[in-house]
Amino acid sequence: MASAAPPPADNPLPSIRRQVSDLHQELVRYQLVVWTAGNVSARVPGRDLFVIKPSGVDYDGLSPQNMIVCDLDGDVVEGELAPSSDTAAHAYVYRHMPTVGGVVHTHSTYACAWAARGEPVPCVLTAMADEFGAEIPVGPFALIGDDSIGKGIVETLAQHRSPAVLMRSHGVFTVGRDARAAVKAAVMCEDVARTVHISRQLGEPLPLDPADIDRLHDRYQNVYGQTGPSASRGA
Amino acid sequence: MASAAPPPADNPLPSIRRQVSDLHQELVRYQLVVWTAGNVSARVPGRDLFVIKPSGVDYDGLSPQNMIVCDLDGDVVEGELAPSSDTAAHAYVYRHMPTVGGVVHTHSTYACAWAARGEPVPCVLTAMADEFGAEIPVGPFALIGDDSIGKGIVETLAQHRSPAVLMRSHGVFTVGRDARAAVKAAVMCEDVARTVHISRQLGEPLPLDPADIDRLHDRYQNVYGQTGPSASRGA
Amino acid sequence: MASAAPPPADNPLPSIRRQVSDLHQELVRYQLVVWTAGNVSARVPGRDLFVIKPSGVDYDGLSPQNMIVCDLDGDVVEGELAPSSDTAAHAYVYRHMPTVGGVVHTHSTYACAWAARGEPVPCVLTAMADEFGAEIPVGPFALIGDDSIGKGIVETLAQHRSPAVLMRSHGVFTVGRDARAAVKAAVMCEDVARTVHISRQLGEPLPLDPADIDRLHDRYQNVYGQTGPSASRGA
Amino acid sequence: MASAAPPPADNPLPSIRRQVSDLHQELVRYQLVVWTAGNVSARVPGRDLFVIKPSGVDYDGLSPQNMIVCDLDGDVVEGELAPSSDTAAHAYVYRHMPTVGGVVHTHSTYACAWAARGEPVPCVLTAMADEFGAEIPVGPFALIGDDSIGKGIVETLAQHRSPAVLMRSHGVFTVGRDARAAVKAAVMCEDVARTVHISRQLGEPLPLDPADIDRLHDRYQNVYGQTGPSASRGA
Repeated sequence: MASAAPPPADNPLPSIRRQVSDLHQELVRYQLVVWTAGNVSARVPGRDLFVIKPSGVDYDGLSPQNMIVCDLDGDVVEGELAPSSDTAAHAYVYRHMPTVGGVVHTHSTYACAWAARGEPVPCVLTAMADEFGAEIPVGPFALIGDDSIGKGIVETLAQHRSPAVLMRSHGVFTVGRDARAAVKAAVMCEDVARTVHISRQLGEPLPLDPADIDRLHDRYQNVYGQTGPSASRGA
Repeated sequence: MASAAPPPADNPLPSIRRQVSDLHQELVRYQLVVWTAGNVSARVPGRDLFVIKPSGVDYDGLSPQNMIVCDLDGDVVEGELAPSSDTAAHAYVYRHMPTVGGVVHTHSTYACAWAARGEPVPCVLTAMADEFGAEIPVGPFALIGDDSIGKGIVETLAQHRSPAVLMRSHGVFTVGRDARAAVKAAVMCEDVARTVHISRQLGEPLPLDPADIDRLHDRYQNVYGQTGPSASRGA
Repeated sequence: MASAAPPPADNPLPSIRRQVSDLHQELVRYQLVVWTAGNVSARVPGRDLFVIKPSGVDYDGLSPQNMIVCDLDGDVVEGELAPSSDTAAHAYVYRHMPTVGGVVHTHSTYACAWAARGEPVPCVLTAMADEFGAEIPVGPFALIGDDSIGKGIVETLAQHRSPAVLMRSHGVFTVGRDARAAVKAAVMCEDVARTVHISRQLGEPLPLDPADIDRLHDRYQNVYGQTGPSASRGA
Repeated sequence: MASAAPPPADNPLPSIRRQVSDLHQELVRYQLVVWTAGNVSARVPGRDLFVIKPSGVDYDGLSPQNMIVCDLDGDVVEGELAPSSDTAAHAYVYRHMPTVGGVVHTHSTYACAWAARGEPVPCVLTAMADEFGAEIPVGPFALIGDDSIGKGIVETLAQHRSPAVLMRSHGVFTVGRDARAAVKAAVMCEDVARTVHISRQLGEPLPLDPADIDRLHDRYQNVYGQTGPSASRGA
């Protein structure tokens, strides 16, 4: 596939299409999605565009070729299929959070269990302090069909340093400086939502000192990994 | 396999056999079944027939060739093996629900946990409003061996818009306009049964406004996906 | 492998070695075992022998060639490696239950959770009535090293029609007319132990009428599947 | 890969690099890790060195070639990438526990759920008596960045015969006579943490007699398996 003449070196679209297509497989690998639910998007560097999953297509059927390119109003620029039904929410985030390069949406089980009760996940694990720097907050209930979901995401994230928000009675949205960071935040969100849930089933997890949360978050965002700052928030 | 002369273009059976065989692998993929439990069937378009899994055969051993063709009384028309022990229930549904093109039965864990208590799954997630449009109802306890199970399924579904019914102390039956839609309903049924169960372990999920459930269900059944109406109910 | 001259047609050992080796992969597939825990054995038809897993060998490293052949006292007759540390318990079952052709032992999670509390799994699902015909009983606490475990299994099963017993604070033993039936019972035991556990987390499962349990069990043991009686108990 | 001239027979590094790289796949197989979290290290026999995972690299991207070789102060001796951010803790263990040949760190779900509450896992299963010989203890809360974590691990293990410690609000560290034994301890730690958690959800697991725990632990550490003593503690 894609064995035709290589695109011009200054065209980032082919690699972004491939990245977005490939990252959807991480949602499958970590069992964050079933059937056709869930989606990943990535901003196209240097252009007012983003790439997103088509609507209602099986994870097995995704490829760089059938990803959809949209402008920042969520209108389709390239693509045969309809874009994800969550496209308006992704577009709203890109318009209002200029440092965000990737957005992910899932209905992952444990995160949704907290979202259904409208309860934030308290920050009681060092891995959670590392990645989220605080509790994972809850955003408002919002119906699909206009900018309500996007607005709820942006307004909630503006008040927290978490790259993840639990939209009430709905699911998870995460952001990152790129799509990979947003997928990582979605994976870690479900992981900590699950561990804290299970811990609370038999008692109350011990609190972390807020100063320790700050120290852990600062260190992780600036030291961990191979390439310096790894802030998944993209801020 | 099946490399002989192609069937006449007007014979839908070969493709229905393949579809039913393949869809059983989705039950395995989403861990809705163990050993030989569970079954998928599909009505043969334009004929008073349906295709169903043979009884007691491993999921690894299923193929288009060993699927069983039955008439709408559940009697075998083609096939070497005995049909699924749930064949009578599938046949009853096809006889009494003419718009149903596919039926699925599983003992998936979380759905059965609700069924064992005889409790419907309350509609507290937007994804559940999308797919089920309301709670997932409970049908009566019924013994295998006559039309009791089929009757219980049809009578329960007649009073709800859910494409899934939890048969008390037994398991899940789902219907759809085709077999793929019925499998999707079975996957989503377990997914929401699990999420709502987990949410309720630590408190009470927040209710959805019935008018919002209606709006979500209407939109999803008529807008989502690539091909217009995707009503899994088949109604 | 094993491409040398075929064994005499009257030697059942090669096929039993292969069956026992292959059936261990079902324990892995259904996540009933971790690391080297768990084991399957099969009686060799027409001989006072059984075939069992070697001790402490990875599931990836099992093959027909490294299975161990033991006599009914549990002494090794063929094999380079030490037999499973549970060999004495298997041998005791074969000596005292002449219709049993296969034995399985696991520490599967939900079954062990019931075993750790010393609580039988109540029969509240039709699939459980089918396979077990009653509750899954609890056997005594017994230390490894002599016939205590074997004796506990046999004495408990003698008083129940279940092919599975939860040995207190330890794990599951299942029996069957052959090794495949015993593996099926181990898979179903974990499946129903999990479903009933989850059901009870949010209330009390509804009881089944004992007469219905009898009807379901009788039908399943005599009608289900392709080959007539499928009694996993081997009785 | 690695098809060049074989290393001198007295150089253990190539095989240790391969072992450490391969053992990380066991963490994935048993779902003890997500994304890049978790790490395995192994002491290099006869040298004051150990081999550990690079920091922030995907499990799919690990190979013998990109493993990092450190001295016992945790300083890199060979390797292009930064070593695991937990390297200081591993180094501290190797400096202070001379019989330890392998160390593993995970954030596995059920073990972390106990760690978040600061509660040891009680020894109520024979498999737990075998492997851990007692409860799995809780170590202190400690921030990353100096020797606090390593000190907490060593001081806690010094008072217990368990090869695993739950570091409060953080995760699991396990030790073994070699890296494989430490990985086994990490796998078993999660397995028993899960089973005991689930058992306690519906009541209280029955206690084991301390004398029976001693008998089981002594037998398992000295008799089980193919090669004599299998003490995972490495003591």
